[in-house]
Amino acid sequence: MKLYDHKLAPNTRRVRVFLAEKGIEVPMQPVDLKEREQQGNAFVAMNPFATVPVLELDDGSHLCESVAICRYFEALHPDPPLMGTDPADIATVEMWQRRVEMNGMMAAGDAFRNSSPAFEGRAVAGLTQYPQIAELAERGRARVTRFYEMLDDVLADREFIAGDRYTIADITGLITVDFGGWSKITPDPSLKNVHTWYERVSSRPSADA
Amino acid sequence: MKLYDHKLAPNTRRVRVFLAEKGIEVPMQPVDLKEREQQGNAFVAMNPFATVPVLELDDGSHLCESVAICRYFEALHPDPPLMGTDPADIATVEMWQRRVEMNGMMAAGDAFRNSSPAFEGRAVAGLTQYPQIAELAERGRARVTRFYEMLDDVLADREFIAGDRYTIADITGLITVDFGGWSKITPDPSLKNVHTWYERVSSRPSADA
Repeated sequence: MKLYDHKLAPNTRRVRVFLAEKGIEVPMQPVDLKEREQQGNAFVAMNPFATVPVLELDDGSHLCESVAICRYFEALHPDPPLMGTDPADIATVEMWQRRVEMNGMMAAGDAFRNSSPAFEGRAVAGLTQYPQIAELAERGRARVTRFYEMLDDVLADREFIAGDRYTIADITGLITVDFGGWSKITPDPSLKNVHTWYERVSSRPSADA
Repeated sequence: MKLYDHKLAPNTRRVRVFLAEKGIEVPMQPVDLKEREQQGNAFVAMNPFATVPVLELDDGSHLCESVAICRYFEALHPDPPLMGTDPADIATVEMWQRRVEMNGMMAAGDAFRNSSPAFEGRAVAGLTQYPQIAELAERGRARVTRFYEMLDDVLADREFIAGDRYTIADITGLITVDFGGWSKITPDPSLKNVHTWYERVSSRPSADA
């Protein structure tokens, strides 16, 4: 087994933090995104969508999509649970993971990919080239800012995003804040609950993964 | 238990088709999206993100996000499995469900919400108003069109999107094609595998749910 990884990419970090929380070690194979290795024939044969991370299993098959890779490890190594325990809890964690992803992380991605000079002409991950849309970068910034306000309300009465236990929703949240920082989108200082939570999750050893 | 539903919304249909495939009946409570009932105080108290569907459980708690609701029912009623069986299969189904959702259904949403006159000034679901972005509607159209080409390759050697069994990835795919149709985005006639697959999944009784 090995994980095709890139040290800076937000989606690869999701898997690395998840593995660190589980105490699982997986050999890493770096992918040189700067040289567009993920668009080369060898990589595209593993993942036609040309994105990292990719998990290569011992039978030679490949799993892609960070959350799907996390769920694979959750099913193999249920402890500590990061994706819920009973049916209602599993669904609650997925609800929060998706809310954070759609409203936070993906909006931060809209902001970054549609404004960074490094991504000019390739505003969407994958093989097809799409021009940047400045208005979408602005919308992304506004959506992340609004998301932090909603998150602050959620965190008023709990330690972690999905409840009283650290889950994959916190991983996606941590990475949203750090990824948003690339575009200088940061939670307003008035959002005390978000700042306290961020301190809590970013001080865990897994955050360095 | 009851499901806050809207007959036309793509995300509510995902849950209805899923339930129909499982043979589960849940009482439905229609939400009047035309009258913005989902933005009213009573609804927002259940779901601060102001989206349908919402599943109300017997203890009065609420589950939101269509895929999270589906996973709740999958955990309670594993047969027939629609989200995988063993760890690799569960991850493979989630990989495909996410690929179809991100590259197909969400791109179809970008096309529709950013161009339909009915959604002028509210291009993103939720309480916050965002103006439409015409370039994003165009990008959405292009991405769905490209996604169908990739899907045609995938379906060259299998009956269903995630393998030889119908799964939630097919539900998201079916709804992508129908939702894309609202913006007149349809798979090119040359994509025979997509058309054969669409015929297969849309002729199942669950497609009428």
